[in-house]
Amino acid sequence: MTPQPSTRPQDNPVTVIGLGPMGLALAEALLKNGHPTTVWNRTPEKARDLVARGARLAASAADAVAAGPLTVVCLKDYATLYEVLDPAGGAPAGRTLVNLNSGTPNEAHAAASWAAERGVAYLDGAVMVPPPLVGDPGSVFLYSGPREVFDAHRVTLASLGDPRHLGSGPGLAVLHNAALLGLMYATMNGFLHATALVGSAGVPAADFADLAVNRFLPTVVDATLVEQAPDLDAGHYPGDLGTLHMNLNALEHIALTCEEQGVHTAQPRLMREIAARAIEDGHGASNYLAVFEVFKKAAVPDAR
Amino acid sequence: MTPQPSTRPQDNPVTVIGLGPMGLALAEALLKNGHPTTVWNRTPEKARDLVARGARLAASAADAVAAGPLTVVCLKDYATLYEVLDPAGGAPAGRTLVNLNSGTPNEAHAAASWAAERGVAYLDGAVMVPPPLVGDPGSVFLYSGPREVFDAHRVTLASLGDPRHLGSGPGLAVLHNAALLGLMYATMNGFLHATALVGSAGVPAADFADLAVNRFLPTVVDATLVEQAPDLDAGHYPGDLGTLHMNLNALEHIALTCEEQGVHTAQPRLMREIAARAIEDGHGASNYLAVFEVFKKAAVPDAR
Ligand SMILES: NC(=O)c1ccc[n+]([C@@H]2O[C@H](COP(=O)([O-])OP(=O)(O)OC[C@H]3O[C@@H](n4cnc5c(N)ncnc54)[C@H](OP(=O)(O)O)[C@@H]3O)[C@@H](O)[C@H]2O)c1
Ligand SMILES: NC(=O)c1ccc[n+]([C@@H]2O[C@H](COP(=O)([O-])OP(=O)(O)OC[C@H]3O[C@@H](n4cnc5c(N)ncnc54)[C@H](OP(=O)(O)O)[C@@H]3O)[C@@H](O)[C@H]2O)c1
Repeated sequence: MTPQPSTRPQDNPVTVIGLGPMGLALAEALLKNGHPTTVWNRTPEKARDLVARGARLAASAADAVAAGPLTVVCLKDYATLYEVLDPAGGAPAGRTLVNLNSGTPNEAHAAASWAAERGVAYLDGAVMVPPPLVGDPGSVFLYSGPREVFDAHRVTLASLGDPRHLGSGPGLAVLHNAALLGLMYATMNGFLHATALVGSAGVPAADFADLAVNRFLPTVVDATLVEQAPDLDAGHYPGDLGTLHMNLNALEHIALTCEEQGVHTAQPRLMREIAARAIEDGHGASNYLAVFEVFKKAAVPDAR
Repeated sequence: MTPQPSTRPQDNPVTVIGLGPMGLALAEALLKNGHPTTVWNRTPEKARDLVARGARLAASAADAVAAGPLTVVCLKDYATLYEVLDPAGGAPAGRTLVNLNSGTPNEAHAAASWAAERGVAYLDGAVMVPPPLVGDPGSVFLYSGPREVFDAHRVTLASLGDPRHLGSGPGLAVLHNAALLGLMYATMNGFLHATALVGSAGVPAADFADLAVNRFLPTVVDATLVEQAPDLDAGHYPGDLGTLHMNLNALEHIALTCEEQGVHTAQPRLMREIAARAIEDGHGASNYLAVFEVFKKAAVPDAR
């Protein structure tokens, strides 16, 4: 009979390596939930507040990893992970590493192999909230890698947020991370650019945010996307409520308006080009979502 | 004593010129609310259902405009407005035109002058919802032009949605329209591109939409934008929870992930360039919203 792991945080010690804004938030949430917490950072001064709240500061990355069964790493990138852990000998065999930095699927695969060579269990992961929301039970954390490793550490991972296992392929978490962050930056850029545009006529950002974000995005944009997502899977883009030709016309007006008002034009010009490409590909009478067909393909270099 | 205008829809006849998807929705909402409604379209067949529901189909654009005090025009663009109304002699003096096509502020100014020369009262406007939401009392319609013209026709405009007067400058409605639609296309492109990216690993769009749109956008993105909008007005971008350097790092991972997965890369590459430009301009230790400073300026041609 295998002993059931304890679900009490006090019985689940954890190490956090990397105390940038995100690593600090992770360590704080773990401490607050009662996990015995060891930390390490290249710049040890950043651990001061954590130590005052009960964290143990390890003298080296090797000591930090050796301190317990589970280490959460939140450094800048995969290159930094190797830079920090290779001199430490990776991690003692039998330990588990959960790595939360951003990166690419290929990098996640390489890190999983690197860990496997050292007999270390490895989960790749991604934090889908900003630091102040870490520890909130509704904050989504994405993980990929062996299901049994995820299950073995679920208690600790749940102290950080809502842990979701995407599958065993190590690249799935960073793939979703890249997709969701891409959506985030696109939406933020859309808002910031729109705010700059109305700002050219003296409209304050705070006024515009109320109309644009509290009102326009949820009722017009978000609702449409969720409703029409199944059409994307089916490649079905009926144009009866508005065609891509109509949308190209609107995108031309947006780009021209930006020129008239003297704000940055690269973003609207690219959006116009993408819509024009979808029309060239035969989707002119479809609705706007047909640009999905353009996004699914790597652009042919110099094709335009 | 001036007589108070009647607030009963039956006493407020209206003409709709242009029966594309949007014009059809406008005429339907007006009919449903009880306004005597006259319509005209280049292709008269599109009026069939409206006539069956009580609309009068005018024989010419001139007849349509002459039929009553107020004409709502919803054609493709300003060029089409002139093409349709110039042979009709513009509109009889004393009539009011409300023009709802998309365009640029300069075009709206020109249309206001064109109307003024003909003794016609003119409001420029923009429909901020798709056709199925026209007629819903919560659907935002933006108007700009003389306040008294807006007030005189408020009853009729309220049959289309929630009418908002932005100010007397005729270009304000299309300026807001360009800004809000720019945000819409940016967000839709962000979602469609992200869906293509996870789709490269077989994730269905409908599954991703639930995580991305129902969960991630409202909790992480929208909340941040509304909360931080006053910082944009103040030019205040504290980087203590994440720096533009960290974001550039994430944007590089996104662009690389798109290359690895073989999806379209132009959008993430542009986002990376915009962040890099903000860092070059000295905002590397600020938070991401500092890219607002880039968007406020027309790009220097060939500067990169
Ligand atoms: N902040 C956010 O909002 C957020 C949200 C989701 C995900 N993330 C991801 O979380 C990861 C960490 O982000 P972050 O915001 O905490 O800040 P960051 O600037 O990306 O990373 C800072 C951490 O990396 C360490 N580091 C960098 N170069 C190093 C080197 N050569 N050797 C040793 N350590 C090195 C820093 O140590 P020092 O303290 O010694 O410099 C610090 O611990 C990133 O991959 C980011 O994409 C961040
Ligand atoms: N559909 C939407 O979701 C939506 C949302 C908000 C705003 N808008 C704006 O509303 C306006 C109308 O859009 P829409 O979707 O209804 O379709 P549209 O394709 O932009 O415009 C169609 C209308 O323009 C007429 N037209 C085009 N060229 C003409 C010409 N040379 N002479 C006479 N009439 C001509 C069409 O007549 P025929 O029927 O004879 O072709 C039809 O009445 C656009 O400016 C659009 O940006 C649309």
